[in-house]
Order: sequence, then C-alpha cells, then structure tokens
Amino acid sequence: MPTADDVAEAAKRLRGVALHTPLITSPLLDELTGGRVFLKAETLQRTGSFKFRGAYNKLASMPQEQRGGGVVAFSSGNHAQGVAAAAQLLHMPAVIVMPSDAPAPKRERTAALGAEVVLCDRQKDDREAVARALAQERHAVLVPPYDDPMIIAGQGTTGSEIIEDLAAFSLAPNFIVVNASGGGLAAGIALAVKAQHPDVSIYTAEPEKFDDHARSFRSGRRENNETTGGSICDALMSQRPGEITFEINRTLVGNGVSVSDEEVGYAVAFAFRELKLVVEPGGAVGLAALLTGKLDIKGKVAVAILSGGNVDPELFHRLVA
Amino acid sequence: MPTADDVAEAAKRLRGVALHTPLITSPLLDELTGGRVFLKAETLQRTGSFKFRGAYNKLASMPQEQRGGGVVAFSSGNHAQGVAAAAQLLHMPAVIVMPSDAPAPKRERTAALGAEVVLCDRQKDDREAVARALAQERHAVLVPPYDDPMIIAGQGTTGSEIIEDLAAFSLAPNFIVVNASGGGLAAGIALAVKAQHPDVSIYTAEPEKFDDHARSFRSGRRENNETTGGSICDALMSQRPGEITFEINRTLVGNGVSVSDEEVGYAVAFAFRELKLVVEPGGAVGLAALLTGKLDIKGKVAVAILSGGNVDPELFHRLVA
Repeated sequence: MPTADDVAEAAKRLRGVALHTPLITSPLLDELTGGRVFLKAETLQRTGSFKFRGAYNKLASMPQEQRGGGVVAFSSGNHAQGVAAAAQLLHMPAVIVMPSDAPAPKRERTAALGAEVVLCDRQKDDREAVARALAQERHAVLVPPYDDPMIIAGQGTTGSEIIEDLAAFSLAPNFIVVNASGGGLAAGIALAVKAQHPDVSIYTAEPEKFDDHARSFRSGRRENNETTGGSICDALMSQRPGEITFEINRTLVGNGVSVSDEEVGYAVAFAFRELKLVVEPGGAVGLAALLTGKLDIKGKVAVAILSGGNVDPELFHRLVA
Repeated sequence: MPTADDVAEAAKRLRGVALHTPLITSPLLDELTGGRVFLKAETLQRTGSFKFRGAYNKLASMPQEQRGGGVVAFSSGNHAQGVAAAAQLLHMPAVIVMPSDAPAPKRERTAALGAEVVLCDRQKDDREAVARALAQERHAVLVPPYDDPMIIAGQGTTGSEIIEDLAAFSLAPNFIVVNASGGGLAAGIALAVKAQHPDVSIYTAEPEKFDDHARSFRSGRRENNETTGGSICDALMSQRPGEITFEINRTLVGNGVSVSDEEVGYAVAFAFRELKLVVEPGGAVGLAALLTGKLDIKGKVAVAILSGGNVDPELFHRLVA
C-alpha cells in the first residue's frame, strides 16, 4: 500500500520534470456555487493530463536493469501519452495498447511521443491481457494505469501541490472533487491531503453509466459497470475501481457523485466560454458536479481537478457551440 | 505621464478584485523556441482579457462626485467588457459604444454585465466622437481604451505580477512581447518592468495590416494604418498608437514585430492543441511571433502576454480544426 511518504518521494522525482500546475480561480464560479473554488488545471500538465505524474514516477523508480526491455501500457489515451512521454524522457522503449475507438488525436500524439501503438477492440479484447502478453514477450515491464503503488504516489503529487499552493494564501481545502476512472488520482490525492488535513471531504466524480466508485462506496465492495462504452467521457470508462485504489478510497474518500453527458457537455462549454480553458469531457466531470449543484460547497474552500484536456476538435466544437 | 509609482498604486487598488493570473509554461514551447517561455495568461483574467485592470483602476480612482453620471466607453469588445465589469462592481452606470461588426459574444457579454450597448458603423462613424457626445449628454466620464494615465497604470499591473512571479523562481525576464492595439498594455508593462529591469527587451506584436507601432517606432512618429478592418484580430485594429502610450513606448519599447492572420491562426490552434488554452486571435499575436521564429529568444527568459480569450466559437473551430 502506498503512503503519504511515497507521494513525498514522488514529488522529489517529479521536480523540474512534471509541471507544478496552477490553481485557477473564477469570480463567476464562486458566485454560482457560493464557495471559494480552485481549479487544479492538470489540463496544463505535460501531455495534457495528470497521467504523466504517475507514469514518470513509476518509470523513474524502476531499477536500471529492468529498463532495457522498456515498458508496455494499456490505455484509452491519457495514460498512454503519459507513459510515452515518460519513456521518451528516460530513453526507454514503450509499447501502448489502445482501444481502436480512442480519439484520433490521442493515438497520434502517443505515436508522436515515440511509442509503438497496438490497437485492440474495446468490446472483444481484454486489453490488460493483451498488454500482459506483450510485456512477457518483450521482457518489458507492464505499467498499469492506476492499480500500482508508484502510479498512485505519482498522481498524489497533484494533491501535495494543492495543499502547498493553498497554504500560500493561508488557506486549506474543505472539499475536493476528483474525477475517477480506476481511482488512482483520487487515491493519490487522498493520501497526500488527508495526511495533513484529515477533515477534508473528498468526492469522486464519474459519468452516470460509469459510477462504479459511487456504487462501490455504498455497497462496500468493488462494483462493475454494466456498459463498456458510450459515454463522451472516453477517459473515464474503466470497468470497476482498482483493488489497491479502492482499498485507499473506501477509507479516505468514501463518497461519489455522478453526472450525465449533458451536464458534462455544459461544463466543457462553461470552461471554454467563461474560464478560457480547454477541458476534455472526462476532465470536466467534477466541475460539472459543482455547476449542477449536485455537490453543495457553499461557504467552503473547494478544489476540483480539471484532469485532462485532450479533446477532439469536432467533439469540442459540438459541445461549446 | 504615468509612472511606475502609478502602477504600484494601481496594484493596491486591484488587489483582491483583479485576478493575479498565472505564468504558464510548456516544455514543448521551450523546445520549439530554444528559450524559457512564460505565458502571462490574461485570458484567465476577469472578463477574459487584461482590459479589466485598466478599467477598474480608472473607475476606482474617480472622485465620488464624478461617479453619479457613470461612464461611457468605445471599444471593439474587450475594453467594453472590462469597463462594464468594473462599473458593475463599483455600482456605476455604463454605456458602451461598439462597432456593429464586433463578435456577438462580446456584445452580449457586455450587456450581461449591466451596460447599455450603443452600436455604430466601424467605417462611417468616429466611435470616439460618438462616445464623447454621449458622455457630455449624460454627464458621464469618458473612459478611453488606452490613452489615459490611469488605464495605462492599471494594465501595468500585468507587468508587476510578471516580475513578482518570476522572482519567486529567482528569475528575471530578458524579453517580453506584448500584443498592441493602442499600446496601453505595452506602455503599462514597460513602465512596471523597466523600472526594475532596465535591460529587458520589449517588443510589440501586431497583425500585419495593423502594424502601426512597428512603423511608428521606425519613423519616430505616430503612423496610421491604411485599413480599418479585415483582420481576424478584432481586438487589435486601432488606427494608430495613442499619444501618451507612444510617448512611453517609443522610449521603453521601441521594437515591433508583425504576423499574418495565418500565423495567428496557427498560434490559436497551437494554444488549443498543446497548451489547452482558449486564446482569441488578437490575444495570440505575440505567441505567433515566437512560434514563427520572427522573434529569436534562444537562451532567454521570455514572456508573451496572452492578452485575451473572447473568441466566437465558430471562428475558434475554423482555426483549430
């Protein structure tokens, strides 16, 4: 199990490599929600999402003798780019297994970062099994998207930066909403934040049909989603919470909210029109939960993570027009 | 003539009202330019552009007895929103004279901020004269878009924030590129920055057919543009440099660069794809100058101002798709 100390170690590894992304404020958003809102803009992170943090932490902590065979990862896109960028910086070969329906820009960008892209069918193939077989064949290390202590610790640096930047304004968070797919970002942030501020409320935010965290928190065990596709939030379509991530999140998070595709689309358009930020649908789920009032943050210092910004221009235009 | 002290006074007035916008970095942009680039994201400012700074500083420094009649301004859009928002915060009535071809979102947003919008013809009418007549009629104060000491001092707070934030990284700028229309932002930044760092190089950036600053710097006197419309940079189509602004800029800036609409379009698309920022064409002119290599910043700490993000969704899509 990763700890807050692992997040602190990850922060050292990422210094000068990952960007310390800004907390963005908007008087309009404060007015609409009644809270004091800070948006952690991981859209501005290397590769356009927080995923670079975990990937780089994982790869950079691999012993030298394991690095030669390189790495293999399976991902709908953002983790792919994160792993590819980290591997490029560390001069390691990378193979990425992606679903064939992943947005074209995500595939192209992964290839542009020097990775070999292997496509598979989201409905038919077990991506994880494909990736595992490839890793074995090439003597490469499999880099899972979330269920790994080093990945979780890397994502957690998002949380330590939030604490650090709020402290500069003599503030501490009361409330954090984290977009969740496998739950790695939520787990990492929860580890980092709860160690210093045990009273902060943390919520996961998910698309309606992929609300596995919300349901798992209620039942107390890892629940599956019934569908495997069909949300505009292509980054948030995992089948169920991770094993390690859920073990952390059930204790430190424990609450989840879900939003419809329409609500997410409104949040993407709001970010374009009012915040001048490009946010992908999966990156805007927590913001949507605030804008709809599904999460009440009146009078609170609240943080929402804008977890990614890699969106197809056509889909983006459809949502903002 | 405004001074660096006026900028310092403006910074006090704007504290807690204007946003202290972040300096955004991009490893890719550093790699492409060979410099260490910081983007001052005034796109994230209240009303989506730097114009709020000058407007609020002007209105907040008006004596109480002048405030009753309110304010009148003429603007292609961003100054309009800045004045409207400042007037709303200070509970003053505002009338904005806008060209009838200003982008619809800019007109709508100005009205939504509580201002009365009066439209006029960009080719036929002298907007400034229309505004002046309205101000006289209503016993209101005319708020010019740039040629005013308080406006210039307000915009200059952009520069003092740059200095402050770079100093936190133990850095100082070598190079600053500022998008210019009337030259108020450039003049304010130059006042603030040169007082502390006299050796920094400052350039104005303009659209090709509106390169009045570049030509005026060469000739030593205020030159006019031949056209009054037709650039995608609707925010940068002033007829000539301001009188006060040019007096400052000829001494403290002195160099200008111009870019084509195509180059600006590329910069807007780059900001969308790579930086995940929404930048309007007029706000991306300086970034375009860096991306084209027209400004050589190799080995330098360079700052470009992303001066605004109020762009029509259709135009935005045409540029990024």
